[in-house]
Amino acid sequence: MHKQISSLQNQAVKELLQLQEKSRARKKQHSFVVEGVREIGLALKGGYRLKKLYYCPDLFSAEELNFVLKETSSEVNISEITQSVYEKIAYRGSTEGLLAIGEAKDLSLQEIELKINNPLILVAEAPEKPGNIGALLRTADAAAVDAVFIANPKTDMFNPNIIRSSVGCVFTQQIATGTTSEIISFLKDRKIGIFGAALQASVPYDSVDFTGASAIVVGTEATGLSEEWLEDSTQNIVIPMQGEIDSMNVSVAAGILIFEAKRQRKFN
Amino acid sequence: MHKQISSLQNQAVKELLQLQEKSRARKKQHSFVVEGVREIGLALKGGYRLKKLYYCPDLFSAEELNFVLKETSSEVNISEITQSVYEKIAYRGSTEGLLAIGEAKDLSLQEIELKINNPLILVAEAPEKPGNIGALLRTADAAAVDAVFIANPKTDMFNPNIIRSSVGCVFTQQIATGTTSEIISFLKDRKIGIFGAALQASVPYDSVDFTGASAIVVGTEATGLSEEWLEDSTQNIVIPMQGEIDSMNVSVAAGILIFEAKRQRKFN
Repeated sequence: MHKQISSLQNQAVKELLQLQEKSRARKKQHSFVVEGVREIGLALKGGYRLKKLYYCPDLFSAEELNFVLKETSSEVNISEITQSVYEKIAYRGSTEGLLAIGEAKDLSLQEIELKINNPLILVAEAPEKPGNIGALLRTADAAAVDAVFIANPKTDMFNPNIIRSSVGCVFTQQIATGTTSEIISFLKDRKIGIFGAALQASVPYDSVDFTGASAIVVGTEATGLSEEWLEDSTQNIVIPMQGEIDSMNVSVAAGILIFEAKRQRKFN
Repeated sequence: MHKQISSLQNQAVKELLQLQEKSRARKKQHSFVVEGVREIGLALKGGYRLKKLYYCPDLFSAEELNFVLKETSSEVNISEITQSVYEKIAYRGSTEGLLAIGEAKDLSLQEIELKINNPLILVAEAPEKPGNIGALLRTADAAAVDAVFIANPKTDMFNPNIIRSSVGCVFTQQIATGTTSEIISFLKDRKIGIFGAALQASVPYDSVDFTGASAIVVGTEATGLSEEWLEDSTQNIVIPMQGEIDSMNVSVAAGILIFEAKRQRKFN
């Protein structure tokens, strides 16, 4: 049943490399590559379907593989790959010997389902680096927010750097992408308070009531939020800065704001 | 007056490269390399003495240089370097055309001066990456904590990756390094409450009173704090985690804890 792949010229290897490197290939094939037992486990837990599974017998035992397969409900095409091919495909430093092609989900706002009762949403506008998105998703997972929206994204969410830096949390969250205008409309239509992190015309973040339906919106470290957010927000908020520099890492700022909301909600 | 350096074989270039690459060279010469106008400005503001200044006239104007020099009180040896030499020395991606050798400070606990009135201290045990230390120092700067202690450090604090990822905040903070035992003794001698971030035997972080003299202590993402901290703490604290994974980025966790302390102190 298992096919062994030993050549970099193999079509499947080329497909894997394309999916890892090219956003366009991921979109066209509605697929992504995910590496590692924990990440694949979180993808399955998040309801993602695996299309193909590749493992390297020198690095990963058939026993471990069966353990992973127990979690998959649908049928999955499994192939063995040699270590030299695996090392060519795998992300730098990865030695787990397991990777998969997963079917992407539609991350449009229309797919988002929110609880009626005071949802808490994290919104990030145009995050500069995949690593920043990954860190935001880890924080969103820890806080169990109801959804994460990425406005005007500069990459697709199945970028391997996002999957990796989020430690698989990209699969555990309800995520949607859209333009800033679309997301603002979505929030306003549902009467969700918009709290934009800003420096001007803002109040200290801890003076705001986050116990109602709330979206906490953060911009980039370099330029902050766009005018559109700042003008359409319910209230702009600021983290009082008392040091020599006036910028904060965006995932740290998001963590402080989201957990202030969680604290006010008594972690319920 | 200005010497122009155009060869990679020049002794000064070799010295710069050694100071950037080797912790041992930095320790031996009690010196470090700092790049960029903002970072050099923060070093001067933090009371660091510059020994040598190098600038590349193709990238950096003499006018800008004079502006920087206005901030230096002591005399500094200035050299011009060609663009090709600068690009070899400079950190990847840096194009500012200005770097300096600064004199290191003694970062021992004995040098730390604390205000009598309820100091707030951030302690990190054995942070894994220079980038993590940089992010912690940015947060410490934003919160204007009284001191940052790094226990059992894996690198010296003048590592170029720390300088860069801290955006120069390594110069704005009172920093000390020491063993975990030394730092615990320091804190206990001064009756500073020790609050260790932990999962076991801990209370929610927001149930603790941080308005007295407090040290917030974070461990590594992989293994958390050592037993020594957990046993000697005044109270272990936990950030309630409600997601699928049970780890948080160390600088995000530190940000949440430090800003909860700041909130309780009404940002005074």
